[in-house]
Amino acid sequence: MFYHDKRLQYPVRCPNPNPVFAKMLQQAIGGIEGEIRVCMQYFFQAMGARGPVKYRDMLMATATEELAHIEMLGHAVALNLRNAPASLQDEGAADSIVGAVMGGQSAKDTILGMMPRHLLSSGLSAMPVDSNGVAFDMSHIYASGNIVADMMANAMAEMSGRTLAVRLYNMAECEGMKDMLSFMIARDTMHQEQWLAAIEDMGGLAAATPVPNSFQDLPEQKKFAYMFMGTDRNGEPPPEGRWTSGPSIDGKDNFYAAQAEPMGEVPSLGGARPDSGAQKEQMQEAPKAAE
Amino acid sequence: MFYHDKRLQYPVRCPNPNPVFAKMLQQAIGGIEGEIRVCMQYFFQAMGARGPVKYRDMLMATATEELAHIEMLGHAVALNLRNAPASLQDEGAADSIVGAVMGGQSAKDTILGMMPRHLLSSGLSAMPVDSNGVAFDMSHIYASGNIVADMMANAMAEMSGRTLAVRLYNMAECEGMKDMLSFMIARDTMHQEQWLAAIEDMGGLAAATPVPNSFQDLPEQKKFAYMFMGTDRNGEPPPEGRWTSGPSIDGKDNFYAAQAEPMGEVPSLGGARPDSGAQKEQMQEAPKAAE
Amino acid sequence: MFYHDKRLQYPVRCPNPNPVFAKMLQQAIGGIEGEIRVCMQYFFQAMGARGPVKYRDMLMATATEELAHIEMLGHAVALNLRNAPASLQDEGAADSIVGAVMGGQSAKDTILGMMPRHLLSSGLSAMPVDSNGVAFDMSHIYASGNIVADMMANAMAEMSGRTLAVRLYNMAECEGMKDMLSFMIARDTMHQEQWLAAIEDMGGLAAATPVPNSFQDLPEQKKFAYMFMGTDRNGEPPPEGRWTSGPSIDGKDNFYAAQAEPMGEVPSLGGARPDSGAQKEQMQEAPKAAE
Amino acid sequence: MFYHDKRLQYPVRCPNPNPVFAKMLQQAIGGIEGEIRVCMQYFFQAMGARGPVKYRDMLMATATEELAHIEMLGHAVALNLRNAPASLQDEGAADSIVGAVMGGQSAKDTILGMMPRHLLSSGLSAMPVDSNGVAFDMSHIYASGNIVADMMANAMAEMSGRTLAVRLYNMAECEGMKDMLSFMIARDTMHQEQWLAAIEDMGGLAAATPVPNSFQDLPEQKKFAYMFMGTDRNGEPPPEGRWTSGPSIDGKDNFYAAQAEPMGEVPSLGGARPDSGAQKEQMQEAPKAAE
Amino acid sequence: MFYHDKRLQYPVRCPNPNPVFAKMLQQAIGGIEGEIRVCMQYFFQAMGARGPVKYRDMLMATATEELAHIEMLGHAVALNLRNAPASLQDEGAADSIVGAVMGGQSAKDTILGMMPRHLLSSGLSAMPVDSNGVAFDMSHIYASGNIVADMMANAMAEMSGRTLAVRLYNMAECEGMKDMLSFMIARDTMHQEQWLAAIEDMGGLAAATPVPNSFQDLPEQKKFAYMFMGTDRNGEPPPEGRWTSGPSIDGKDNFYAAQAEPMGEVPSLGGARPDSGAQKEQMQEAPKAAE
Amino acid sequence: MFYHDKRLQYPVRCPNPNPVFAKMLQQAIGGIEGEIRVCMQYFFQAMGARGPVKYRDMLMATATEELAHIEMLGHAVALNLRNAPASLQDEGAADSIVGAVMGGQSAKDTILGMMPRHLLSSGLSAMPVDSNGVAFDMSHIYASGNIVADMMANAMAEMSGRTLAVRLYNMAECEGMKDMLSFMIARDTMHQEQWLAAIEDMGGLAAATPVPNSFQDLPEQKKFAYMFMGTDRNGEPPPEGRWTSGPSIDGKDNFYAAQAEPMGEVPSLGGARPDSGAQKEQMQEAPKAAE
Repeated sequence: MFYHDKRLQYPVRCPNPNPVFAKMLQQAIGGIEGEIRVCMQYFFQAMGARGPVKYRDMLMATATEELAHIEMLGHAVALNLRNAPASLQDEGAADSIVGAVMGGQSAKDTILGMMPRHLLSSGLSAMPVDSNGVAFDMSHIYASGNIVADMMANAMAEMSGRTLAVRLYNMAECEGMKDMLSFMIARDTMHQEQWLAAIEDMGGLAAATPVPNSFQDLPEQKKFAYMFMGTDRNGEPPPEGRWTSGPSIDGKDNFYAAQAEPMGEVPSLGGARPDSGAQKEQMQEAPKAAE
Repeated sequence: MFYHDKRLQYPVRCPNPNPVFAKMLQQAIGGIEGEIRVCMQYFFQAMGARGPVKYRDMLMATATEELAHIEMLGHAVALNLRNAPASLQDEGAADSIVGAVMGGQSAKDTILGMMPRHLLSSGLSAMPVDSNGVAFDMSHIYASGNIVADMMANAMAEMSGRTLAVRLYNMAECEGMKDMLSFMIARDTMHQEQWLAAIEDMGGLAAATPVPNSFQDLPEQKKFAYMFMGTDRNGEPPPEGRWTSGPSIDGKDNFYAAQAEPMGEVPSLGGARPDSGAQKEQMQEAPKAAE
Repeated sequence: MFYHDKRLQYPVRCPNPNPVFAKMLQQAIGGIEGEIRVCMQYFFQAMGARGPVKYRDMLMATATEELAHIEMLGHAVALNLRNAPASLQDEGAADSIVGAVMGGQSAKDTILGMMPRHLLSSGLSAMPVDSNGVAFDMSHIYASGNIVADMMANAMAEMSGRTLAVRLYNMAECEGMKDMLSFMIARDTMHQEQWLAAIEDMGGLAAATPVPNSFQDLPEQKKFAYMFMGTDRNGEPPPEGRWTSGPSIDGKDNFYAAQAEPMGEVPSLGGARPDSGAQKEQMQEAPKAAE
Repeated sequence: MFYHDKRLQYPVRCPNPNPVFAKMLQQAIGGIEGEIRVCMQYFFQAMGARGPVKYRDMLMATATEELAHIEMLGHAVALNLRNAPASLQDEGAADSIVGAVMGGQSAKDTILGMMPRHLLSSGLSAMPVDSNGVAFDMSHIYASGNIVADMMANAMAEMSGRTLAVRLYNMAECEGMKDMLSFMIARDTMHQEQWLAAIEDMGGLAAATPVPNSFQDLPEQKKFAYMFMGTDRNGEPPPEGRWTSGPSIDGKDNFYAAQAEPMGEVPSLGGARPDSGAQKEQMQEAPKAAE
Repeated sequence: MFYHDKRLQYPVRCPNPNPVFAKMLQQAIGGIEGEIRVCMQYFFQAMGARGPVKYRDMLMATATEELAHIEMLGHAVALNLRNAPASLQDEGAADSIVGAVMGGQSAKDTILGMMPRHLLSSGLSAMPVDSNGVAFDMSHIYASGNIVADMMANAMAEMSGRTLAVRLYNMAECEGMKDMLSFMIARDTMHQEQWLAAIEDMGGLAAATPVPNSFQDLPEQKKFAYMFMGTDRNGEPPPEGRWTSGPSIDGKDNFYAAQAEPMGEVPSLGGARPDSGAQKEQMQEAPKAAE
Repeated sequence: MFYHDKRLQYPVRCPNPNPVFAKMLQQAIGGIEGEIRVCMQYFFQAMGARGPVKYRDMLMATATEELAHIEMLGHAVALNLRNAPASLQDEGAADSIVGAVMGGQSAKDTILGMMPRHLLSSGLSAMPVDSNGVAFDMSHIYASGNIVADMMANAMAEMSGRTLAVRLYNMAECEGMKDMLSFMIARDTMHQEQWLAAIEDMGGLAAATPVPNSFQDLPEQKKFAYMFMGTDRNGEPPPEGRWTSGPSIDGKDNFYAAQAEPMGEVPSLGGARPDSGAQKEQMQEAPKAAE
């Protein structure tokens, strides 16, 4: 079960609030690269973890940390919104100039139009949505029951998470926000490294792949298991690289390249069944015999 | 641009059709581990690929191959559905026995209840949905503009894809389906290996991480970049493993473990603004001065 | 504005309730072929209708009728569910036999597993979801502001709606349900016909197409406007039919067939920008000059 | 920030695992009446709470407790799934009998067909989805910035939550599950009561409504603010009750009933603009002058 | 069944059209606080209402009224959009000044970028989407089959609806829009009051809670039913208020406060099954014996 | 199976990149009127096509062409984004002027706020989303198994697709974009025409309707199959048009108009069941006898 400490994990200061930056920060809360995603992903992976208990504990520890990241960002969004225009009274003198220039459109209108729901739905607070206002959807919680597939999913999530945090850092103009983001970037570094370290802990990618390593490719299909397939219409060979020759990552064979060619038949379903709601014209051919 | 060959990439035979297995196969078409996902993911990554052109070409070649996998599975679903019950006339003698046993419920009802939309909406054909009938949602196409984050996303997708194919293979009772799936498992092996090989092609994970490698952790935050944080309420130390000591994966520092402690303040937003649609009681405290 | 008459548009009787059929009927309420869709589609088209007012009035009249169809189906679902098993007390003697046969699984479990939310969430009533329990999503309301595109969308919706009603009719075993569905099938007939009649009212498809008919194909592109493009990899000609020769539907030209060939360049984006969160390796090539 | 204790809040025992009950329990994890919803709702409300700090602290305390409920249910789902059929080897002798009865369909097929993703996607673990396998969508996190609207949303969520828990309790056959659910029902009782108590703490519904109480109905519209409108087509008066006479809940006026009648005009938009992609026929009427 | 009167319920005038305000109004149509939601929620509750018929009639009357509110807002959106820029010809002289100031970006671009689908998809008409352009999703229709839970859901929906209408009123600059919104605010007042009055009609919250009142907390769990649980990591007592002492709302007991402590075990699932698609490493521990 | 040619189908040039236009183009990629939709719709229809094989081949040929359209648009989006502001360094001199005018808001902020995810999530590349950033959802792939319903769905999709392309053409200021769009408009013309031609190929709408033509309206319901129903509250007759008199489109009868009147009963469900989680008050009436 869980406990809470009222203090934030790291200071969140916002001397120069910017409502548009609040909108950008939402990507780090409710975006697919964001903190709700990693938090819930590690939590569900931990709840379903079978095998050595240390991986379960590791997942739960970091899930718990990510809750604190959501909390920091939620506070940061509210701080950035605190001066956002919400009514006619906010309109300053500048607006009449802008209106003249922009054909009646005011600066207030521009901000309203860019973040309507923070003004209309949340009362100037953070929401579990991305930077376009699209709610986070839990189908992005990847937890497959295969520990290596899950660790890869986690490393990937932290890579896109750190990429997002770097982009936000590049955009930020407020020193308080830059400081908060630099802490988050550092944690994303660790989290990337730790999930990759967990794969090393299990013997590394050579031992772990192909995932799941509890199923071996069947002998008759093995020729397809290390072949890079080119699909160029004009028969141009596929691009050469580490993936077209040399030992495979799992060390079980060598890569090679070849042009893809059809091995199957032209598919055909025959006519439609009389009870299937199709048109009469579709029923005039015989249903195909079972293959 | 694209071209089509009428033949399938690999034979799809289904001597023993099973409508419930058709439902299972839908996960490999429209599930998050399925073929629409990898196909569109590689396609969008290719369209946005900046930097060495060989990665773009590699992505497009495999995107093109995945189209053929959707096609094979779509045909397999239709073949498995071809005898599914769709009307009263399908009811055989067995049903009256089942009805007696199951309190009026018939075997036909059971199948209808498990796959309603294949009977009501698609006319016994494949749909772009998962095994629960939930439509695939393109937010699962991960394409970040960072080539290593994307290759990891691809390797992860193929790992969960091969895990799914193995589970389907374990469930399958029809030899035709087992043969088709064993080909797909072999291709998933190659695809896992090839995306990992692309990372090696760029110097491997040591050179690539932390992603993005074009941004270095700031000196003042570096102490947080290799620290595994324990969050146990009772102060129990975090689980030991490759992630608590020894060199980090990027080779830039050493891992260590520590207990997480709050470094920030108790957050506070003060009172609500008069124009914000809050209750009067929320406005009785002064809005907090800007931080 | 709207008014309500307490009586249903047509009798809804259900002497033989079947909870699985309730699940099937949900497709006609909250499915993409269902009544919420057509009701809201006609309503939004009416609210945005510009031009001759008779089309607006016609849309609103049928939107109002569709509300009555939702109401009939909602009642039908509740009637079919009225004996569904919701607790241990429902279990009859038959279950012990089934349990013996099915390895501990009971008939009650089977029904629960097929319609969990009608038992857990709605208290044995209709929901605005499809037959898989997926909620209706208003993105399926098609209202383009182009009256012909909208009438086609409506005709199509009624075609798939009547196809669905026919499939339900084929599945139904209860005379009351068959009677209700036969009324709905008749109304779907009329609704198909009336939207097509509205296109005739505007001059028919020849005058209406290509939609929008307020924009003419540019002279330099007109050669592509009536060409059926084959994309067979082996150069096999496209299938012949009404679409490969003879006058086009709009009467402006003649159809012909040809093989698709690339007219454009190989696309290239060059290197990534330094501020874009990409990997260093992607930045080593120069960004491509503006095209 | 947050901390974790490895022990569960309350014992979770499952001596009689039932995979269909695992499916039912998913509604309490990822359903709209479930624990992810209340947990995240209280968390986001706390992060945006303005005004007296005690409400913020109360929200965060219960958000933290709800994390423990997700954890208990996640464990309960995995325990119920531990014997679910996942491969051919699971098939017992009973199946051949069932197959004979059900026309080739086996009991294993029935279970597979009812919970495909727990077998294919999660490896027999809990998922953040409802009982139909639909992922939880964070748009259900209601946090309006108005503390009374939010407390009502919370009370409502716990009412539907306790209703769900009671329905699950009625369905459960395993004593361990019944015990866990009875604890959750008790907590749902408290949570209902505490959010209602918070409204009393602010003066009760009379003082709080109409929400927001910081805006008064305008004098010229006040006649509409306490009138129950009947919309019966035949002029039948609306149903009498507490809402048609006597003092309003806010004590500001008296309820009364009346028949709704149109006060506005017939709406009209005139013709379509030439640049708007409409049909020519829609443009033949003049656009309506600005109202 | 339903009938329609061509006139609007209340006048909708828009002398000063503002396309950005059209975007804001969309929240009141297709937002979770909007009119489609309440309309459909009351409709589905009415269709499933069991027990005294007056509640069913009341729900249906107000559902019917809400259809008229959608209609008013749909018209208001179209009126506000009627001068929105849709093509090059709209660009006035002001734009060249703006372009100079904004680095080539024009005022037209700004408006396009804020409401792309009203220009591209709807032809300047209302859509069933919220202010971010996200389509309304019917999972927000709450209808539980429990009349008190439903009345609370309705009161809450009207509270957030009136909060939204007040925020829109504060933003509006056009007198016609302010007048329309003041009517809607008054109706939201009545609707809040009427659903609360319905609960009073059934005896009030004391008699109604805990919902469902047809299930009593079990004796052995009753101690948890009135305890406010603190979860502070440092043992700080929970915030005091009406919820920590004094009689509970249902009058059945007294509130008290206590610190949450784990009563359960450390959960453990043991090793993975050989057929489950996990890694070999996860299978090296024995699956845990059934609890 | 599929093959790829590295060259684009038609030249894509973008001499005057405009990030807001990139946002607009997204509607043509991931909008419901866009290219992913038609591509996947034709692909799934082809995979499920029963009856004459020429329709299947026709569908697959055009599905393959649409892949090339996605590719062109994906490249066009990336080209339009190539100068979008992504970091502080982009800010030119103009911004300080704008800032003065707009109360601190900069032109960079305006662009960021309008397209956050292209900057934060995709690294300046195309995404499978619409112009509001909402991901494409595969439930919009209409494939009913009825060939006429499907051809109508296709014609409708191309009509709304050409309407969208015309609107984009009207907005475009860059000659390269106008040229690309004029090619796409021409192809949308052909695609509209070809699906309508396919219906002619099967005998035209008279023979094809009512869809499905394999089910005839029952004699006792036929009177409802050609009646336009008015629902005006005041009994005003429905709008006259081609749909109120003259032969029906299917030639089987004549249209006529009549006022809708209720033929059914007042629905009633009686009291709630004791096991259903309702309130006690709902259970005090007897459950209604089965109808």
